[in-house]
Amino acid sequence: MLKDIKYNKDGLVPAIAQDADTGEVLMLAYMNQESLRRTLDSGEAWFYSRSRQELWHKGATSGNTITVSEVWKDCDSDTILIKGKAAGPVCHTGNPTCFFQELTKADLEG
Amino acid sequence: MLKDIKYNKDGLVPAIAQDADTGEVLMLAYMNQESLRRTLDSGEAWFYSRSRQELWHKGATSGNTITVSEVWKDCDSDTILIKGKAAGPVCHTGNPTCFFQELTKADLEG
Repeated sequence: MLKDIKYNKDGLVPAIAQDADTGEVLMLAYMNQESLRRTLDSGEAWFYSRSRQELWHKGATSGNTITVSEVWKDCDSDTILIKGKAAGPVCHTGNPTCFFQELTKADLEG
Repeated sequence: MLKDIKYNKDGLVPAIAQDADTGEVLMLAYMNQESLRRTLDSGEAWFYSRSRQELWHKGATSGNTITVSEVWKDCDSDTILIKGKAAGPVCHTGNPTCFFQELTKADLEG
């Protein structure tokens, strides 16, 4: 199953994090092979920071780790979905989810 | 709001589709600027097919369109989340969601 994962040319795969209880989509980040391995092994979410170019144990500095209960891959094996519980606000802005800005049809104008 | 969207070097942004009622994550695909415009304008999900390299009106051939009720962008403006209702199975495999294959710690072995 793991061998099938299709990493992009940067060796990364997008990973969606979802609240296991509420279903709220919390964030999207990227994993490399090692992040995925550590996530499955440790039960906490690990990503790969594209800006810092390093393995990223989510919450290592903020304390807002994500305890992972389920890991899924999609039909094409090029996207990961993790379900879990965050210890605090997931977003660096302090919002519980990174998706707090709504776009509407009105945004098409001007 | 739309002008802030950060498309990658291929002019694409990942877009998560979520069932507006159940919260189930259905799929991840990619949008270019025109897909996002059409999604907001039409209220149906449009993506960009990376394999076919063309605008992709989800469900145009299968009939399984996604009627979109909400469109969100994330804190970094580099991921889109759409919430909506699919007219049928979203996945090309016939599954209601593309995320039907679970990974576990056991997958780390062998």
